[in-house]
Amino acid sequence: MNILLLTENDWLHGDEVRLTDHRFQHIQRVLGAEVGTSLKVGLVDGNMGTGTITAIDTGEVLMQVALSESPPPRHPYDIALALPRPKMLRRVLRTVAEFGVGTLHLIHSWRVEKSYWQSPLLQTGNIQRALQAGLERSGDTRMPKVHQHRRFRPFIEDILPALISDRAGVIVHPGSEPVLAADQTDHKALILIGPEGGFIPFEVELACQQGVSVRSLGRRILSVDTALNTVLGRQLI
Amino acid sequence: MNILLLTENDWLHGDEVRLTDHRFQHIQRVLGAEVGTSLKVGLVDGNMGTGTITAIDTGEVLMQVALSESPPPRHPYDIALALPRPKMLRRVLRTVAEFGVGTLHLIHSWRVEKSYWQSPLLQTGNIQRALQAGLERSGDTRMPKVHQHRRFRPFIEDILPALISDRAGVIVHPGSEPVLAADQTDHKALILIGPEGGFIPFEVELACQQGVSVRSLGRRILSVDTALNTVLGRQLI
Repeated sequence: MNILLLTENDWLHGDEVRLTDHRFQHIQRVLGAEVGTSLKVGLVDGNMGTGTITAIDTGEVLMQVALSESPPPRHPYDIALALPRPKMLRRVLRTVAEFGVGTLHLIHSWRVEKSYWQSPLLQTGNIQRALQAGLERSGDTRMPKVHQHRRFRPFIEDILPALISDRAGVIVHPGSEPVLAADQTDHKALILIGPEGGFIPFEVELACQQGVSVRSLGRRILSVDTALNTVLGRQLI
Repeated sequence: MNILLLTENDWLHGDEVRLTDHRFQHIQRVLGAEVGTSLKVGLVDGNMGTGTITAIDTGEVLMQVALSESPPPRHPYDIALALPRPKMLRRVLRTVAEFGVGTLHLIHSWRVEKSYWQSPLLQTGNIQRALQAGLERSGDTRMPKVHQHRRFRPFIEDILPALISDRAGVIVHPGSEPVLAADQTDHKALILIGPEGGFIPFEVELACQQGVSVRSLGRRILSVDTALNTVLGRQLI
């Protein structure tokens, strides 16, 4: 954990915060912190800074916090990803948060099993918890926004055009197209990533009709989590 | 599964192969294959090609195989990675195989818990199984070689110099150094990746004394599996 995330409910008054839940346990057992210890803390969707422990006993910890730093900048890529199976979705959410993605669109596609949309992980609280795991690793406070689009064609035809009105639209697809460029300066984009087995040709074509261009991630077939991580890791500046 | 991996023990005679284990079950239940169905197959550490089902019953499948294609080329990067905790190691092994890494060195480092070296996953058979999961995803046949180095300094001083005699040596480390370059042509390298929390300054210095240069992966702290995936995804050509 590289940052301890706080919510407004944690505030007692002024700059004093009280924790009694798993975060208290983490501070006590994992960090072995004592009165006077300073920790990196942040308010979810707010500033980051330092929390200094003023009291700790068997059931709670009190901290005095100072939040003066802005969270790190957003990743220049937003992502539209064909909904993966639940086990992989958890990792996807963590990766998206870890890289500071602003918005993730989970979309339907021909090769997405309909049952995936029933996953309890798609409920808001569960998505937030999975994202939080990523924020805690990378030391960020800003929750990516996650939107769900259960029909492919309406997403592509009605929603996508507005999403790429101020940025490039790119679909990554196995094949002979040039690889997705790396480290482009001032390059905001929405990247579309298919399901295991890829988008079907009709889907690629439909996206291209909206002005999306096709790029590859090299000659290998990559699994969905690996492809997502690769896309985000291509743009490090 | 994008390739069905075979070993020499599977051969009956000539070009005929018999499977009775989980691969048989995969062919029958997941793929729903019948007599005449062709599958992508490959011999571990050998060629790839096609297997055509000649007989299938409740306990076995027979295939006629033709293996005439070479496996895909190796990734230009070898990796030296501080041993991660067992759960993450499994994913690391899959990623390494998925990208076609030739050699993975698992190394000790100050922030690696000694107990990690006791993980049953480090036994040869278990490593092979985890690697195989990656090969099956990417459609490759060549097992990465995995070496274990339980002492940091002897690895850096006695083994590393030979490993980087014919290629660049780069240590990726959070900080202000330039980001690891992307898509360099004809660029073989050994990339050193630290544990959660990073290499300690002394370790970075020791590696630099052997001619290794320092690069970053951007300003964010990335977890080990994300850092590894990012490193490999920076070099797609």
